[in-house]
Amino acid sequence: MTLQGTLLIGQQAVTGSQADIYAVNPATGETLPPRYPGGSRADVEKACQLAEAAFSQYRETTLEARAQFLETIADEIEAIGTELTQRGAAETGLPEARLEGERGRTCGQLRLFASVVRAGEWLDLRLDPAQPERQPMPRADLRQRHIPLGPVAVFGASNFPLAFSVAGGDTASALAAGCPVVVKGHSAHPGTSELVGRAIQRAVAKCEMPEGVFSLLFGSGRDIGQALVSDPRIKAVGFTGSRSGGMALMATAQARPEPIPVYAEMSSINPVFLFPEALKARGNKIAEGFVASLNMGAGQFCTNPGLVIGLKGADLDAFISAAGEAVKASNAQTMLTPGIHEAYQSGISALSDHSNVKEIARGQAGSGPHSCQTGLFVASAQDFLADDALQGEVFGASSLVIECQDSDEIQRIAEQLEGQLTITLQMDDGDLNAAKALLPTLEQRAGRILANGWPTGVEVGHAMVHGGPYPATSDSRTTSVGSAAIYRFLRPVCYQDLPTDLLPEVLRDDNPLNVSRLVDGKRES
Amino acid sequence: MTLQGTLLIGQQAVTGSQADIYAVNPATGETLPPRYPGGSRADVEKACQLAEAAFSQYRETTLEARAQFLETIADEIEAIGTELTQRGAAETGLPEARLEGERGRTCGQLRLFASVVRAGEWLDLRLDPAQPERQPMPRADLRQRHIPLGPVAVFGASNFPLAFSVAGGDTASALAAGCPVVVKGHSAHPGTSELVGRAIQRAVAKCEMPEGVFSLLFGSGRDIGQALVSDPRIKAVGFTGSRSGGMALMATAQARPEPIPVYAEMSSINPVFLFPEALKARGNKIAEGFVASLNMGAGQFCTNPGLVIGLKGADLDAFISAAGEAVKASNAQTMLTPGIHEAYQSGISALSDHSNVKEIARGQAGSGPHSCQTGLFVASAQDFLADDALQGEVFGASSLVIECQDSDEIQRIAEQLEGQLTITLQMDDGDLNAAKALLPTLEQRAGRILANGWPTGVEVGHAMVHGGPYPATSDSRTTSVGSAAIYRFLRPVCYQDLPTDLLPEVLRDDNPLNVSRLVDGKRES
Repeated sequence: MTLQGTLLIGQQAVTGSQADIYAVNPATGETLPPRYPGGSRADVEKACQLAEAAFSQYRETTLEARAQFLETIADEIEAIGTELTQRGAAETGLPEARLEGERGRTCGQLRLFASVVRAGEWLDLRLDPAQPERQPMPRADLRQRHIPLGPVAVFGASNFPLAFSVAGGDTASALAAGCPVVVKGHSAHPGTSELVGRAIQRAVAKCEMPEGVFSLLFGSGRDIGQALVSDPRIKAVGFTGSRSGGMALMATAQARPEPIPVYAEMSSINPVFLFPEALKARGNKIAEGFVASLNMGAGQFCTNPGLVIGLKGADLDAFISAAGEAVKASNAQTMLTPGIHEAYQSGISALSDHSNVKEIARGQAGSGPHSCQTGLFVASAQDFLADDALQGEVFGASSLVIECQDSDEIQRIAEQLEGQLTITLQMDDGDLNAAKALLPTLEQRAGRILANGWPTGVEVGHAMVHGGPYPATSDSRTTSVGSAAIYRFLRPVCYQDLPTDLLPEVLRDDNPLNVSRLVDGKRES
Repeated sequence: MTLQGTLLIGQQAVTGSQADIYAVNPATGETLPPRYPGGSRADVEKACQLAEAAFSQYRETTLEARAQFLETIADEIEAIGTELTQRGAAETGLPEARLEGERGRTCGQLRLFASVVRAGEWLDLRLDPAQPERQPMPRADLRQRHIPLGPVAVFGASNFPLAFSVAGGDTASALAAGCPVVVKGHSAHPGTSELVGRAIQRAVAKCEMPEGVFSLLFGSGRDIGQALVSDPRIKAVGFTGSRSGGMALMATAQARPEPIPVYAEMSSINPVFLFPEALKARGNKIAEGFVASLNMGAGQFCTNPGLVIGLKGADLDAFISAAGEAVKASNAQTMLTPGIHEAYQSGISALSDHSNVKEIARGQAGSGPHSCQTGLFVASAQDFLADDALQGEVFGASSLVIECQDSDEIQRIAEQLEGQLTITLQMDDGDLNAAKALLPTLEQRAGRILANGWPTGVEVGHAMVHGGPYPATSDSRTTSVGSAAIYRFLRPVCYQDLPTDLLPEVLRDDNPLNVSRLVDGKRES
């Protein structure tokens, strides 16, 4: 199809009236047509109005109808074909093969949520049957289920133009929960966004869902996003991006007459702890895996390993040397946007210029205008502990190795870490006791702990946690990847002594949908 | 025992150094000894330091040990005997029988959470086993559990000196989750608080828990509370009280370098919808039940029915007349504190003086200094819809009846309601369709919907929701009563490819504690 450069408001395609957005091919610096005139506050109003109107109908759809809707979105995205991955590659500088993988993940995610919707665990059904004879007071009949919060604002992320964007995890989990979604598309990939948005529009029509269940807005600057989060009809926000962007949305959401939850996934440096036995036994192999993870997507992953901690000595020296060689051999990769490239350069310069940081190696210089030239640096634990700035995220392929004098210093670093999405342990059997001693501290600082793997590559499943304490996210109680993400858009309601005819179907005695329930606190499948 | 007038910091009794607090018997206006010198910021520091130190040990206690600790607290509270209910009555003006009931509820709540801890549902265990052969990429072994957030600040409420105070629901659910608790006792009942606090201290010692798992602070004004919520070691806040108090804590929590969740239960007017058939068939009986609920605890319940909505006409007239008679016959009751009494008087005066509100009846005037003289008022739906101030909570026995011209006006009122803890339907079989039409709107505005009962009296069970959209609470995704309250103090962590020896026991293959788990999204009991 020919891209139209429009907003998608319900089933309509609407040409914006505000400042134009153009995608830029970061590999060449060239501007990609069409132009995307930004939306106005009136467009935000209209999208929210439609979302609210759709909510009462959408939340009452059967689990089966809602699951089929999610599957239809996946089908429609696949039906776009190579146009999607080609446009995505042009807008992001990412290889087309990576976008093919990401499309698979995105569609798999939608289908996972379809299965989650059908299984109904997320309804958290609880029944406390009446006890009319109880002394000193009879007990009423009490039944609980989860209901959706209402329309959700979703912000597309720059670094995953499919999996964390228009039909990404936030959209999938909100739709699964029964919430209409208004997406603010990321300005760096409007064409990719439009293609996916139109796929969702088609799924809405095919499944005869109320049109307001999905809208897609564009807008340069923060105006549209702030207007969206301020709109009284919006009841929750999903965001993946920078710390400053997330903090701004949190402040807006908190200042509303009715504050609402913001699920912002912001910054993480994903520390990697190198334990002595592992380092001794397979330092070179670890260095190889580390640099491969560091370079993935030009380091533009939320889970990029930006910090490595080890005991100073010959084994760590050997690791640093091997990692440095691998970094030097790293090809330059195009970064997502000119702005991200600029911030990366400035982060790298700050490390290079830091009096207590030593540059180990840089990767190959690129010929394109927005190349990432991987950086590896080293500092002492003492200097790291003395300077909070060294915990700042450099978004892109950059990592800092910290040399510790002893295990006490390692422990102190663990204690001083900010909240993280992930923490990685490289360990062998002989490191077990050291890892055991450190684990309780690490666990309190991350959403995911992994051993002998690399943090990049976030599995979409039931047990995944892509979250963690602030500032990794704004709300550590949830995950933005995996089936548990559905809980972010739900709240419990209790029904007391309601006549059967008034009770939600799932809560009736005969359990018509055969969903697992807690009866007097005991699990009945 | 003789009350000491001290703070309780860990296992120590510490005499405060700041402005004195005295309990006042609201029935007589007399000051009750001893004096309670307020805590300083250094005392807050000390309590938080101990709480943090206790956390690493307390969170690793076995489920059985933690359950026994909760049960021991209940035993120790019961062992105080009548001193507790006598002192409670003197400090609050509540009848001793009511405090006996409340003690039963408080201890029952602790024991419920003991059973919840043992059952382990709250761990939300999820296993996605490794798939080494999966194409195109193998799947790692992923396991998820919930872990506690860290030390929790709990604010005692004025209106339930046992069940929502030092060892109330917030404390019970936080301790159950594995979080140490620092309580800011309510200044209106320091003696009751000290008695309960010492019972918890004894339970800590008997169960050999780390001393910092519990501390109790006092302080006049908001200084101590704000210092507590600002302390970086505190990771969540539980509060029941006024809207302004809750909002102040939310602002403080949000302004911290690391923002934390605040669970504030604030204000609710608990609308009651009178449907026509029910009103016609049993208007007098409904009026009787309504006024009994209205007068419960001098109306000082969060779930007090402060708003009644019905169709204008002879049946509603008869209801108003019967309710008015019952109100006139209502005995005066002593209110909790001089401050609450003053706010009540001012709320009642605002209604009496309101040009669009008619006073129906007042209860018996009291002879004591802080008497609640029940008030019943009426206004038209049109006037109610035009004036948001009429949705304000008058804390105490006061209710406003709204006369509607037709069902459209009832629907508009439902749509304009702020978030509520409860909404009550008085309905008969013939009202089913009308109730069905209204329910989706009501459900979006309340945490609990009940039919043909009264909102006062909140059952402590598994299916209860004592919560609701803002401003009923600061966070509609949770409940402050019932077993699901434990989730407020937990967050998920995922373990990827961890060696068995490093895995938390509950996540090991053999499920040693036999806790229900989701394996690849399917429930295994």
